[in-house]
Amino acid sequence: MVAEILAVGTELLMGQIANTNAQYITARLQEVGVDVYFHSVVGDNPKRLKASLSQALSRSDIVIMTGGLGPTKDDLTKETVAELFGKKLVPHQESVDSIRNFFARVGREITLNNLKQADMPEDCIVLKNNNGTAPGCLLSSPLGTVVMLPGPPSEMKPMFDENVIPWLLKDARNKIYSKYVKVFGIGESKLEDMLLDLIEAQTNPTVAPYVKDGVVTIRVTANCATDAEGQQLVKPIIDQIIARTHDAVFSIEDESMAEVVVKQLKKHKLKISFAESCTGGLLASSVVDIPGASDVFERGYITYSNQAKIEELGVTTDALEDFGAVSEQVALQMANGAFAKSNADIAVSVTGIAGPDGGTPEKPVGLVYIGFKTKKAEWVVRLNFWGNRQRIQHMAVLSALDGVRTYLKKELMEIIDKQNIL
Amino acid sequence: MVAEILAVGTELLMGQIANTNAQYITARLQEVGVDVYFHSVVGDNPKRLKASLSQALSRSDIVIMTGGLGPTKDDLTKETVAELFGKKLVPHQESVDSIRNFFARVGREITLNNLKQADMPEDCIVLKNNNGTAPGCLLSSPLGTVVMLPGPPSEMKPMFDENVIPWLLKDARNKIYSKYVKVFGIGESKLEDMLLDLIEAQTNPTVAPYVKDGVVTIRVTANCATDAEGQQLVKPIIDQIIARTHDAVFSIEDESMAEVVVKQLKKHKLKISFAESCTGGLLASSVVDIPGASDVFERGYITYSNQAKIEELGVTTDALEDFGAVSEQVALQMANGAFAKSNADIAVSVTGIAGPDGGTPEKPVGLVYIGFKTKKAEWVVRLNFWGNRQRIQHMAVLSALDGVRTYLKKELMEIIDKQNIL
Repeated sequence: MVAEILAVGTELLMGQIANTNAQYITARLQEVGVDVYFHSVVGDNPKRLKASLSQALSRSDIVIMTGGLGPTKDDLTKETVAELFGKKLVPHQESVDSIRNFFARVGREITLNNLKQADMPEDCIVLKNNNGTAPGCLLSSPLGTVVMLPGPPSEMKPMFDENVIPWLLKDARNKIYSKYVKVFGIGESKLEDMLLDLIEAQTNPTVAPYVKDGVVTIRVTANCATDAEGQQLVKPIIDQIIARTHDAVFSIEDESMAEVVVKQLKKHKLKISFAESCTGGLLASSVVDIPGASDVFERGYITYSNQAKIEELGVTTDALEDFGAVSEQVALQMANGAFAKSNADIAVSVTGIAGPDGGTPEKPVGLVYIGFKTKKAEWVVRLNFWGNRQRIQHMAVLSALDGVRTYLKKELMEIIDKQNIL
Repeated sequence: MVAEILAVGTELLMGQIANTNAQYITARLQEVGVDVYFHSVVGDNPKRLKASLSQALSRSDIVIMTGGLGPTKDDLTKETVAELFGKKLVPHQESVDSIRNFFARVGREITLNNLKQADMPEDCIVLKNNNGTAPGCLLSSPLGTVVMLPGPPSEMKPMFDENVIPWLLKDARNKIYSKYVKVFGIGESKLEDMLLDLIEAQTNPTVAPYVKDGVVTIRVTANCATDAEGQQLVKPIIDQIIARTHDAVFSIEDESMAEVVVKQLKKHKLKISFAESCTGGLLASSVVDIPGASDVFERGYITYSNQAKIEELGVTTDALEDFGAVSEQVALQMANGAFAKSNADIAVSVTGIAGPDGGTPEKPVGLVYIGFKTKKAEWVVRLNFWGNRQRIQHMAVLSALDGVRTYLKKELMEIIDKQNIL
């Protein structure tokens, strides 16, 4: 089966946003064995939209459209599809109710154009939007199949995963079983070297690494009749990847680093606290991002100035004067301060130079110290990151969490009883 | 003039990367008054590439291609263009030399396929690549104009800016002048209602709203001969938008909310501190994201548990027991605690239910209290957000910052002297 992706929206043609929806959908379609030969973007212009859609239908089995389902006048996707397919747009009562409920719940006044979102082409399958107001829909006819999804990625992704993927798989003979092996601390090209024979084998399962935000994800996908068979096919490959990369694999379940660490802490009833300087709360918020974080995280300190480091964490003026705020000594004192003041089992500190200013030849932009303190031990890691402010902060957060992960893993392999761990 | 962008590369059709090149090029083209009606992505397949290119040439004045200029067998851009235009590919001596020099410099052996990158279509303008090995080129003929640029953004962007923009401007009559008016606190459809006559006028300037991450951006674009004329054309429209939306406009310079608040605080030499519960450090990190934040932000408290709220911020057990952690009273006590402990002029607290668990009929998921404390005043805002955990946290952060922004704006209009403001 061949699909193509047609994004609708002048904001894409003005360069305001990148078409990340096409990337997401394509990657997911790959996993279920659907090929994609074309992506297109067209503006909110009925004539060009109609021409693009006709062409897409003529060369692909299924056209996945994103955008143009909103309440405004220039949202024309449904209108254009309905016209091309010779269908009327009719109000979909369930969607009308859900839009009304939505506005009632958030206490905002509903306007007439909001209800336009509930008008759907006759004979379509309506796709419920659990994260916004515009429902999507799927329309099949002799002309072909068109799926219409909302433009905002937070609405599009769950709608696609929950509706379109199952629909595509409904009469598949074979299914697709994928695992996502996530690796931190080894670069993509080095990792590719380490796994070259596995990647080149490329039969069943296939092995495909890709890098994003400092983490390499290796997708291992098997074509199989049942989940059990899929599991059996991918297991030896995953075992090989883990064996070759050692501790660098942090998940085989597509979890984020923060999810893995929260899960680990939760399992062993451990609490963590943070003392952050250059990451400014990003480390704590990455943990709070995970539902149920309250079981493992209680408090954190953002001590951006020296004065705050002294007053909140008991960092000494001597350490600040002799070694500077970005130093092994201050990182350690910060971790110790957070450990002493909170009821945590492990405290982690971050101090560094995120740039763009503040670098010196001795302490360049990208230099970060991460301090760790437990009942049993204390240590500091010194790291050098390249990239802009956001990347340096992000890599510091990942490294701090990875330090916790590898420490706990090592400790937990030796002793399982909490009292002896930390 | 109408351009379109044709990206070539199977990695885009595998979902490994997003087509950020198209976003960049489009935004730059807008600025020089070139319209873009289509983006397309096609794989490294000669037949489909040729068909896409023919179509693009038939409907646009200029086709900008990215990717497919590399040394490997599946890099086919130049070959396909040359065939379509009836041109031969001939070695370009300067490029041959520069590729040889590059390999000599990095001490790597040159292979024959590397020199393939120096083969250029007859009669083209060769575009030098200062950041990689593959040169680009520009080919004009009665069939139309094609620009071929390398795929890696670090090579494509400077080549585009240094060669293509000057080429486009060489006989431009008009230019484009854009301003981005950013609005928070009014939904997209309500805002459109408020501005419908301006949007529908759609002559010069044009007015186009779009929403992203809780913020509506209204692009106001004028077609003009000079920047001064552009400024004159957009000003009355922007004045109208501000007048109709009152305080909801937070920037007309495409700044983020955090940038605006940091700038405001910096200008008046004010310091801010934060006490966060459900946002877990996200509010502080949004401020620390802005270079130079250390002038206005010194410290923050992440008090996720009740115990932390009591110990770090002096929240009372009574308030927690009588009203709960998510309440007006606790929000106020948190703000007061942060204000008293830090050296800040304004302290902001956030406590709420980010979900997915923890909601009750009285206190549903999405309920957030934001507390504010200054020398002069204290107040609390109660808000209800919809969406997932990330959206609720994000909206709480924006609302907290917007609370600071509007308070300062109001205060600053009355009294300019710092001592009397807070």
